Amino acid sequence: MIDLRSDTVTKPTEEMRMAAYKAEVGDDVYGEDPSVNELEATAAEILGKEEALFVTSGTQGNQIAVLTHCRPGNEIILESESHIFYYESGAVSALAGVQTRTLPGNRGAMSAEDVLHSIRPEDQHYPETGLICIENTHNRAGGAVIPLENMKQIYEIAKSHHVPVHTDGARLFNAAEGSGLPITHFTQYTDTVQICLSKGLGAPAGSILAGNSETISAARKWRKRLGGGLRQAGIIAAPGLVALTRMRNRLAEDHIHAKQLAEGIREMKGLRVVNEIDTNIVVVDVSETSLTPAEFVDKLKTEGVLAVGFGRNAVRFTTHYDVASNDIERALRKIQAAVK
Amino acid sequence: MIDLRSDTVTKPTEEMRMAAYKAEVGDDVYGEDPSVNELEATAAEILGKEEALFVTSGTQGNQIAVLTHCRPGNEIILESESHIFYYESGAVSALAGVQTRTLPGNRGAMSAEDVLHSIRPEDQHYPETGLICIENTHNRAGGAVIPLENMKQIYEIAKSHHVPVHTDGARLFNAAEGSGLPITHFTQYTDTVQICLSKGLGAPAGSILAGNSETISAARKWRKRLGGGLRQAGIIAAPGLVALTRMRNRLAEDHIHAKQLAEGIREMKGLRVVNEIDTNIVVVDVSETSLTPAEFVDKLKTEGVLAVGFGRNAVRFTTHYDVASNDIERALRKIQAAVK
Amino acid sequence: MIDLRSDTVTKPTEEMRMAAYKAEVGDDVYGEDPSVNELEATAAEILGKEEALFVTSGTQGNQIAVLTHCRPGNEIILESESHIFYYESGAVSALAGVQTRTLPGNRGAMSAEDVLHSIRPEDQHYPETGLICIENTHNRAGGAVIPLENMKQIYEIAKSHHVPVHTDGARLFNAAEGSGLPITHFTQYTDTVQICLSKGLGAPAGSILAGNSETISAARKWRKRLGGGLRQAGIIAAPGLVALTRMRNRLAEDHIHAKQLAEGIREMKGLRVVNEIDTNIVVVDVSETSLTPAEFVDKLKTEGVLAVGFGRNAVRFTTHYDVASNDIERALRKIQAAVK
Amino acid sequence: MIDLRSDTVTKPTEEMRMAAYKAEVGDDVYGEDPSVNELEATAAEILGKEEALFVTSGTQGNQIAVLTHCRPGNEIILESESHIFYYESGAVSALAGVQTRTLPGNRGAMSAEDVLHSIRPEDQHYPETGLICIENTHNRAGGAVIPLENMKQIYEIAKSHHVPVHTDGARLFNAAEGSGLPITHFTQYTDTVQICLSKGLGAPAGSILAGNSETISAARKWRKRLGGGLRQAGIIAAPGLVALTRMRNRLAEDHIHAKQLAEGIREMKGLRVVNEIDTNIVVVDVSETSLTPAEFVDKLKTEGVLAVGFGRNAVRFTTHYDVASNDIERALRKIQAAVK
Repeated sequence: MIDLRSDTVTKPTEEMRMAAYKAEVGDDVYGEDPSVNELEATAAEILGKEEALFVTSGTQGNQIAVLTHCRPGNEIILESESHIFYYESGAVSALAGVQTRTLPGNRGAMSAEDVLHSIRPEDQHYPETGLICIENTHNRAGGAVIPLENMKQIYEIAKSHHVPVHTDGARLFNAAEGSGLPITHFTQYTDTVQICLSKGLGAPAGSILAGNSETISAARKWRKRLGGGLRQAGIIAAPGLVALTRMRNRLAEDHIHAKQLAEGIREMKGLRVVNEIDTNIVVVDVSETSLTPAEFVDKLKTEGVLAVGFGRNAVRFTTHYDVASNDIERALRKIQAAVK
Repeated sequence: MIDLRSDTVTKPTEEMRMAAYKAEVGDDVYGEDPSVNELEATAAEILGKEEALFVTSGTQGNQIAVLTHCRPGNEIILESESHIFYYESGAVSALAGVQTRTLPGNRGAMSAEDVLHSIRPEDQHYPETGLICIENTHNRAGGAVIPLENMKQIYEIAKSHHVPVHTDGARLFNAAEGSGLPITHFTQYTDTVQICLSKGLGAPAGSILAGNSETISAARKWRKRLGGGLRQAGIIAAPGLVALTRMRNRLAEDHIHAKQLAEGIREMKGLRVVNEIDTNIVVVDVSETSLTPAEFVDKLKTEGVLAVGFGRNAVRFTTHYDVASNDIERALRKIQAAVK
Repeated sequence: MIDLRSDTVTKPTEEMRMAAYKAEVGDDVYGEDPSVNELEATAAEILGKEEALFVTSGTQGNQIAVLTHCRPGNEIILESESHIFYYESGAVSALAGVQTRTLPGNRGAMSAEDVLHSIRPEDQHYPETGLICIENTHNRAGGAVIPLENMKQIYEIAKSHHVPVHTDGARLFNAAEGSGLPITHFTQYTDTVQICLSKGLGAPAGSILAGNSETISAARKWRKRLGGGLRQAGIIAAPGLVALTRMRNRLAEDHIHAKQLAEGIREMKGLRVVNEIDTNIVVVDVSETSLTPAEFVDKLKTEGVLAVGFGRNAVRFTTHYDVASNDIERALRKIQAAVK
Repeated sequence: MIDLRSDTVTKPTEEMRMAAYKAEVGDDVYGEDPSVNELEATAAEILGKEEALFVTSGTQGNQIAVLTHCRPGNEIILESESHIFYYESGAVSALAGVQTRTLPGNRGAMSAEDVLHSIRPEDQHYPETGLICIENTHNRAGGAVIPLENMKQIYEIAKSHHVPVHTDGARLFNAAEGSGLPITHFTQYTDTVQICLSKGLGAPAGSILAGNSETISAARKWRKRLGGGLRQAGIIAAPGLVALTRMRNRLAEDHIHAKQLAEGIREMKGLRVVNEIDTNIVVVDVSETSLTPAEFVDKLKTEGVLAVGFGRNAVRFTTHYDVASNDIERALRKIQAAVK
């Protein structure tokens, strides 16, 4: 079975397992876990931020960012198919009491002008704009890289209106790899950033939320409220550190595999690759097969390939560490079989 | 000064003032205010619902509806420029913890197909769709009447997915008048409806939320939490009853005045009437005057006409009880003067 | 029927009704209602605060105060039977997301030392203490006046810990009358204060929230979110102004009547007056009658007196504007009849 | 350094580390992590509940329970120094919008009669009682076991009023050990129970929330909202399973060590053991030393013993897996040195 459902399915490497086995640990609620402390310090440095916080998932990192930046009655501006809006169970409104103002994106990128016009002036009838969220790369836009220039423009607008910016960078290392730019080029245009250790980097679990010291200190308390304060967290921070320091360079492979997959699919009748392949995601319209996405996914499964439905007409394939080039070849043969 | 900012600016009539003066009252928190009780019973009957609740404003009626139908973690579907989303200070998320899923409308009407595809299937990543909101007439669409057929389609979709429907009918009597249909034709396609006594009907304050008995009973408690439980509320319920029973028939005049105003403006260079005039609102694009809406509103004010800015390029004029046909004539002359 | 259930049952006076009839009005959402503006200015002056806000009920004033002072994750300190905790349907937690830390009172007064020790130090495990609430007079303590010295001590502790203080002064004018001190002696020891126009002062509805300009400006927006922004609110503000300016001096009568009632009841076998009579409330233990409070209230009703159950063993009688001295005499005879 | 601050400081055993190293894993968000699935099934069986959910901390388990059982506007009844109220940063009100009704306990046990009288009847002024929470053993009561009979009485009251019961059983295995009763004797009197793997059982992190299938299914979604949905969670579930299956029997040792510690301290002048030693916690009043708890803790630290301040006059010592009998002997000598 070739599992292309998500880059979250990667199994930890031997090195990660060994890191878990040997991890130096302490009680992280007391700030005494050396592995967590090292991971946080390393992440802060890589991301170019004052401090970083280890959290158990990308969703948790995003939620804590919103809880920290905003208060109820605020409105947040975000792209209409962004993960925070689309896939986090309505948590930003349930937990942080903020209203979601969604703007349509172009390959996941909101136009800076739309953002500008969506910032609310002060008026009794209006929520206060409390945060602008960017997702880079953008999952539902097929792993599209949000251009640096777009982030810069939005950040400048935000600053001139005293509105903070949060970047859901679950796959920001893919954006850096895909665009050939250092990650700090992106993180300079955001007040906080969340990056996932468990997707392309392959850690078993965990994410990082980074920002300035004051913000991260407040975030730490919200993490406690959400139950994300762990004890000997080093057991998962240690493999997370392996992911962060040893696995970034390998993301290029995933991108090559995704292009390889897309090229193969483009030659198949009945399938249409919807997205430009910036990184590790391939979105395929299956409507000409006269199968629904769910039916197509089921059929693929019987052939030995796992994918996920993605909107009304498409399925998504995601490449990752556990999939090699010859797996892609095999997957293409199986997909071809499924189309027939 | 001719005040065309909103139909909320109407002053109470002599009959309403007399009703306030003579009102039979009691303690409404104990359910003992005869004027409130009569108003609620009358409103329920007119709206074709089991029960009705007197609330202090349209915003309060809408908020209570959402609080009663939903719980945190739910998502509500509503038009992208609807009052609940646009003008209620983010309260639905701040108070009820629901996420707002906004759909673009055609003259304020969401397409039934869009609504259908926005209802979330059950999945750990998704909020539950807790409510669909319709606004009829639709303020930011220029007082457009949401067609009965559209409400019917959405209601049927909602029922087949076990999702309740709430109608922000602040100006639903205008919709009834504008379409020539009895109001119950509209209210049959909604579980709860909020109507304002203080807009075209001219009451000094107050709205009605109507629905089935169970819902209104729960709504009554949320009203108490919001501080909308008043004591001798008959003082404002009595003029509200005058508004509800004596003023509905006069809405046709406002619509005629709006058409009169629109026709006059259409002949002016530099101004462009944006909306079709279904009811009592006229939206005018002023961008060719090279004035911003705020500047145009200021200039109008010096001429003796009050209007409000409405989005990036337009101003809004609203007709109401305190504006007669000759006021419209005078207003047109002043607007013409302002354009020059 | 002699209604001693609450001072909220008072009917508006002829002067109040006339004020409603003649009220100069405007659209208060635009800040243009002269009656509201006059009421707010007058109230601010009487209460010795920079600004005041007209709200529709005491509950709304209290809720807005908490929403304005606090944010979710805060804890508020308040007496264990205070109105905000006991009678506001859990709204402070539902709307403002604050945790209630209740302290037992002595006649409604929390000890300053208890308050001091309940203020939380900064720690990841602790909510931040966001507000201290005082209720004066204290309803469930039988209308007890919270001593000025107690308010002073608590205020000084609060200030030294940078925690704001709110006073639920629904009956603060009774406290001023009962203690013989000007009301500003009390309001100097609180950041915000809510006073009711509709209890002893006899207005049909409405309360005032007063504080400094910044706080009241933020409060105005929360009022809008709760649906407390009314249009021609002058219709109820005008009688409210009559209540505020003409009815304060008459509270002494209610206090005399309450003492008269208590003295009479003290002579009846089977009944025991529980509270010292500071103001206008008399709490009577009925357990020796072998009736439950609910049964006793029912029996009284058949005799022609209305009271309310008050905890496990007692009933409450409240004197007010619509009850004269001879009504108290009659009520005593009826109560005597009920006991037999 | 002998660390007696908490049983949370235990380091994972070699067996737990090896379990992490070898763990069979999958993507738990898809329900495919065999180690998590085995842990959840085993926990459900041990606790006598239909289903169990792996969560990252005791706080998270408690918060999810409240979010699942309640909705905003509800009130929860809990002991006045319970962990949920005292140590979870006000999260129940911030996240679930519930008001906390705290009752004083006798060694951590609320009286069943107090609970009965705190359940709110239906009334517009009252929050609905949404949940009763019990903490067993009770931390701030010095690890006291809540008697089975007390749980039974409260449960029966709860059931007759249709109110659910949640038990914060972070140390419920200590209660079972301390009372000599099977854990299912306790869990039969609660609808949901949270137990910690990371305290006496020694796992690096994680807790279990157990209840009936419907509740746990809803809880799973709230876990996702809080960011507690992990990917290859088996890395921490596997050591958690070791803790759950291999470490329960050793809790008796901790209890013996706590008694040993208490006996030693009882002989020291200036120190007073406050609590009866039911389980693994010893609370010591230090006020006769004329040191504050913080000062005493500092002094102990220089001697080589770690403890924590515990209220105004006391410090707390907690025994656990990493502390042997001879460590207690050494600790006693160091404590003796500190007192001098």
